[in-house]
Amino acid sequence: MSDLSRFSFNSETARHWPLPELIDAAARSGLGGVGLWREPVQETGIDRIARLVRAVGVVVTSLCRGGFFTAADAAARRDRIDDNRRAVEEAARLGARTLVLVCGGLPPGSRDLAGARRMVADAIAELAPFAGEHGVVLAIEPMHPMYCSDRSVISSLRQARLLAEQFPADQVGVLVDAYHVWWDPGLFDELALLGQRTAGFQVCDWITPLPAGVLTGRGMMGTGCIDLRTLRQAVERSGYRGLTEVEIFNAYLWELPGHEVLAQACRRYLAHVV
Amino acid sequence: MSDLSRFSFNSETARHWPLPELIDAAARSGLGGVGLWREPVQETGIDRIARLVRAVGVVVTSLCRGGFFTAADAAARRDRIDDNRRAVEEAARLGARTLVLVCGGLPPGSRDLAGARRMVADAIAELAPFAGEHGVVLAIEPMHPMYCSDRSVISSLRQARLLAEQFPADQVGVLVDAYHVWWDPGLFDELALLGQRTAGFQVCDWITPLPAGVLTGRGMMGTGCIDLRTLRQAVERSGYRGLTEVEIFNAYLWELPGHEVLAQACRRYLAHVV
Repeated sequence: MSDLSRFSFNSETARHWPLPELIDAAARSGLGGVGLWREPVQETGIDRIARLVRAVGVVVTSLCRGGFFTAADAAARRDRIDDNRRAVEEAARLGARTLVLVCGGLPPGSRDLAGARRMVADAIAELAPFAGEHGVVLAIEPMHPMYCSDRSVISSLRQARLLAEQFPADQVGVLVDAYHVWWDPGLFDELALLGQRTAGFQVCDWITPLPAGVLTGRGMMGTGCIDLRTLRQAVERSGYRGLTEVEIFNAYLWELPGHEVLAQACRRYLAHVV
Repeated sequence: MSDLSRFSFNSETARHWPLPELIDAAARSGLGGVGLWREPVQETGIDRIARLVRAVGVVVTSLCRGGFFTAADAAARRDRIDDNRRAVEEAARLGARTLVLVCGGLPPGSRDLAGARRMVADAIAELAPFAGEHGVVLAIEPMHPMYCSDRSVISSLRQARLLAEQFPADQVGVLVDAYHVWWDPGLFDELALLGQRTAGFQVCDWITPLPAGVLTGRGMMGTGCIDLRTLRQAVERSGYRGLTEVEIFNAYLWELPGHEVLAQACRRYLAHVV
């Protein structure tokens, strides 16, 4: 099998696979990294996972997730900022390069989109220096506009870039996830403008019909309509030096044994992305 | 009931209601217009509908739909342009102000998004003078990015505006549908730039969770998270002088008697839009 050293496997792609097995298998397959989520890491133990990734020699390309900054009352927003501080600390302990921010949708019953976007900007302004001190980049993930009301009011690369640029690059960057941005008419212009602000790059594919709730319908690379190779080339041409991470939420894949999902992801990465 | 003279009812909102009854009820309720679809108009008879709307004194704010310009082979693209010419002629016979363009997604198996977008631009360039000669404005409808692969590769207001501006304003404009554009971080800037290029304005609401296939989950005004009043004000401030049309695809509403749906739409228009 060809070189997988610039490939990273996000654990949610095989969400029922115990993390120690997943990390070990990723390393044995020659992958350069893994992407992790807070809850399973906490269940296994942060320090245990930190020792394990160091022992097998993979980097943690991302820790998911911080964010969810939008809430109707100030006390709830304060709780979320506090939780994001803990997430930054966890990322630092894991040696993760980024903490991914899913910034939050509209508070329940609200129609104040501009207000929700201000809440996000305010929260990032408060957290950015803290992240920088911990050597962690806050990676703002612009999410597909179909999630604007319930997951993230940050809906385009341009919007994420303009927000990130208010802060030093070692504190705040942008996560480019193919699934969320492939449709954007300004995609390639924005990638060029992002340059080294790109703090992470994730791939999967866009397939239709979308399932109810539109959360678990992502496809393996090559099964959908995103030109992933051209996208990866543009991301790297703009100055991104990090790994390419696969992150797929798919109800069908979750039923498969983890090692099968990993093998499939590696094959499809080599066939459709590099 | 207050003034509904600037309100228009799109027939797909009550899709099982026979068109003559729908048009008559809209006029009796004091509405200024109706939005129509080609197939039910053809079933009833174009000239019969044309006579009816004139007799009861409502305007046809839009005819849906032209477009679907993207196809893998030239012959199929030619067929679609021919069909769009017929649609323009039908719009003219009805006295419709606009023909709505749902421009088409990626051809099956294609990942060439830029190529599909060129197909759309080429088709509009061919049709624009023909539309102008018939007194019909081609209204490019930027559709929500969740439809990019299968319904329209025109995904943002800015993209639609830049395309429309290549042609005279009496030939090509932009349809602003709240459902498709409410999330756009550049929304209000774009509305101002559109000015009188805005060829139509449609409302409904964004509700979650989205249903499988994401086609029939639109909400009545006021049931979701779009600030429709602010949006309408911005559209009108930019120079739009046309009517506000309600167009809702909702499986639950389709089961209700048409007159109930119309009454509900009128109440909610007055409560949440004007």
